[in-house]
Amino acid sequence: MDNWKTLGFGKSIDLKIFSAKWVLRENPRNRRKSEFIVLESKDWVNIIPITKDKKIVLVQQYRHGIDEVTLEIPGGLIDDGETPLQAAKRECIEETGFYSDSEPILLGITRPNPAFLNNKCYSFLWFDVEKKYEQKFDTNEDVEIILKDVSEIENLIKSGVINHSIVLNAFLFYYLNEKKWDNG
Amino acid sequence: MDNWKTLGFGKSIDLKIFSAKWVLRENPRNRRKSEFIVLESKDWVNIIPITKDKKIVLVQQYRHGIDEVTLEIPGGLIDDGETPLQAAKRECIEETGFYSDSEPILLGITRPNPAFLNNKCYSFLWFDVEKKYEQKFDTNEDVEIILKDVSEIENLIKSGVINHSIVLNAFLFYYLNEKKWDNG
Repeated sequence: MDNWKTLGFGKSIDLKIFSAKWVLRENPRNRRKSEFIVLESKDWVNIIPITKDKKIVLVQQYRHGIDEVTLEIPGGLIDDGETPLQAAKRECIEETGFYSDSEPILLGITRPNPAFLNNKCYSFLWFDVEKKYEQKFDTNEDVEIILKDVSEIENLIKSGVINHSIVLNAFLFYYLNEKKWDNG
Repeated sequence: MDNWKTLGFGKSIDLKIFSAKWVLRENPRNRRKSEFIVLESKDWVNIIPITKDKKIVLVQQYRHGIDEVTLEIPGGLIDDGETPLQAAKRECIEETGFYSDSEPILLGITRPNPAFLNNKCYSFLWFDVEKKYEQKFDTNEDVEIILKDVSEIENLIKSGVINHSIVLNAFLFYYLNEKKWDNG
């Protein structure tokens, strides 16, 4: 299947966390032209921090899209000049104060929504974290830390308590690779 | 943790597949006021169609956000007056022509992105589908069907070929419940 041909871009609309842009494209099958919205965003990271005694460090925070408090893993935008790994460590340290001398493991790279978002999300796993720093929030960020045993995560997912799409992606990669680490 | 207080809304910006709206909110901790963007969208559905011989019906299509062709499961918007289940069956039939007399099973409900999207996605599983209809596309939709044995999906995920966040969510629910169906 062929890609569509990009014929032009409209003016960017600044929406703070990303910009929206109309793109004029041509269908390769029938040459029909249409405009589509694309949200241009920095890439994202998230990270599963896990302690030596197999507790996952979760963050509870208010989310503006759904106007509710959610239970998630740490995550955020990759800043200019940062690698995904550096961003993941930074977000974990800022949001939770948990840190480990071990290097986070890249679990997988996803597309948060290929239909209209242009970015990627890098999911990591960080073994043997422990509380080392004070939390340090971005403006407008308030985060409460909640520790859950790794065995409890499955029920939190099934019951819909953990329901953020890209948080679930990190846990999918975790489950698909779990045996590798149990034997390692 | 408390919700923020909503003080007011800005004008809606129509972006065709959703509308963007600035929301003025007050942090309950420090009374600080800020504006946040919220994308208001209809709820979404997606569905894993599986044949009697354990093939998953996947769809290949061009995606405007990433300007690439992706491998996904059928899905789309819930139309006005539809239930999530009706929308999931309709999308599967339109995009693939595959259908089953059995009723799709609700796998789970997720939040595609609680930080800025207000909607939900309902993921379904549809057993014993078979090709019954011609594909019927929306304007600007071109879909190629690709059948993969259910055992191949894990490697398609690990290798990043299937990487759409909410498609991966459907497979996470599938894996978490797999044993139930094997014994059923």
